[in-house]
Amino acid sequence: MVTKKFAGTADEADLRRADSLAREIFSDVANKWALLIIEALGERTLRFSELRDEVEGISHKMLTQNLRMLERNGLATRKVHPTVPPRVEYTLTEPGQALRATVDLICGWTHQHFGHIETARRRFDA
Amino acid sequence: MVTKKFAGTADEADLRRADSLAREIFSDVANKWALLIIEALGERTLRFSELRDEVEGISHKMLTQNLRMLERNGLATRKVHPTVPPRVEYTLTEPGQALRATVDLICGWTHQHFGHIETARRRFDA
Repeated sequence: MVTKKFAGTADEADLRRADSLAREIFSDVANKWALLIIEALGERTLRFSELRDEVEGISHKMLTQNLRMLERNGLATRKVHPTVPPRVEYTLTEPGQALRATVDLICGWTHQHFGHIETARRRFDA
Repeated sequence: MVTKKFAGTADEADLRRADSLAREIFSDVANKWALLIIEALGERTLRFSELRDEVEGISHKMLTQNLRMLERNGLATRKVHPTVPPRVEYTLTEPGQALRATVDLICGWTHQHFGHIETARRRFDA
């Protein structure tokens, strides 16, 4: 679905590879927890425990999984400070910040349209 | 996470309600299938079977569930044409189109940053 818009900017093999990777990354980040973590880290560097507080309702396991995914994709970095106990901090990278800007737009969209959505739900559920 | 930015524009009870609804809607739409369906419907009105072709890998069940969710939230409309067999078509509403614009940005972001992401993955997996 993504390739069409970018056709003509690279040869076909490159495009296929880009498209397949794009789908993979999209699958990784297009989930509620990942987007909420990105949103929280957009404000400032946070420790694991702070992230748990910021992202209401997230389990230890889901937070760990999603942080590893963000780190793997180069969207967040993990820094261990050699204190006792060790302090572990997460920071968004530049591509992570760029993604966050789009997540912000989804949040803004939600607020802008929630009247319409509430009405539609009432009608649908009736 | 969403409320803070909009504080001062409504009273507290309204904000709490908006924030709780925003979280709900965000949970609904922040999933891979919903976003891919929105992306496909952004191009044009589609029949159920056409959507299945456009959104590669989606199951009948997931497509049905997500279309009902989009309809319930007023993001897509469902129209049944009285033919034999009935033709069922889905169209994005205006709020659905606005959301699609933000989904487009995520797709664009993926393409813009996939070099960085590939490198980060190789390093992480090593």
